[in-house]
Amino acid sequence: MTFTDAELRYLSGQVLGRLATVDRHGAPQNNPVAFVVNADTGTIDIGGHRMGATRKFANVRRNAAVAFVIDDIVSTNPWQVRCLEIRGRAEALSDQEPPRPGFSREIIRVRPERIFVFGIEPGADGMQRRDIAA
Amino acid sequence: MTFTDAELRYLSGQVLGRLATVDRHGAPQNNPVAFVVNADTGTIDIGGHRMGATRKFANVRRNAAVAFVIDDIVSTNPWQVRCLEIRGRAEALSDQEPPRPGFSREIIRVRPERIFVFGIEPGADGMQRRDIAA
Repeated sequence: MTFTDAELRYLSGQVLGRLATVDRHGAPQNNPVAFVVNADTGTIDIGGHRMGATRKFANVRRNAAVAFVIDDIVSTNPWQVRCLEIRGRAEALSDQEPPRPGFSREIIRVRPERIFVFGIEPGADGMQRRDIAA
Repeated sequence: MTFTDAELRYLSGQVLGRLATVDRHGAPQNNPVAFVVNADTGTIDIGGHRMGATRKFANVRRNAAVAFVIDDIVSTNPWQVRCLEIRGRAEALSDQEPPRPGFSREIIRVRPERIFVFGIEPGADGMQRRDIAA
């Protein structure tokens, strides 16, 4: 499985992630997005109302490299943040069955290659990083 | 002024932003970051405990193109999100006076070139976009 149980719990409790894509000039853009964890494929499936018309969808078509991050603040005093960053390659898929209401038939499917986790795994200290086998 | 009054109010009420940078292979990374609005320079100044040792700091040294996004959920029913995305060029600065406690002396200074705003400006409808004069 791509994600640990603690990561799956964390992902299921968060509503928005932020997706970084790179345009044809090598410049990033960064967008809040809704997502679902696809247990069948081990991917993060990102959608929206008119996903097929978005610049991020076009970016992914040209450059598959993406970074998707979820974070939240557990406490400001002491300062405590949790985060899960997924770097990997994405596909811009058309004509998919929408995995949730509000998604159009286009999906950005993110296949994790490297995962960075902070503050999510019980008992773990500092940032953990791991590679995901293809 | 780079930001409108409504944008400044929004920025001052948000604790975390997410910064997308691009590595030497053209792949993005995406990190939750603390920031201050620098009224003197019209920039977003991003810092942290050991900023100078981070990959994002190294990324900015090589590729100045960044995207910084702030968002929040006003309501889930009806679904209502606000966001402010800043695309621009950043400098990796060393030996700065830390603009807030918890920042080291290295700062990523983001100079906005294009701003996308959704749900922040009173009376505005849909996504607004504008370019910032150099």
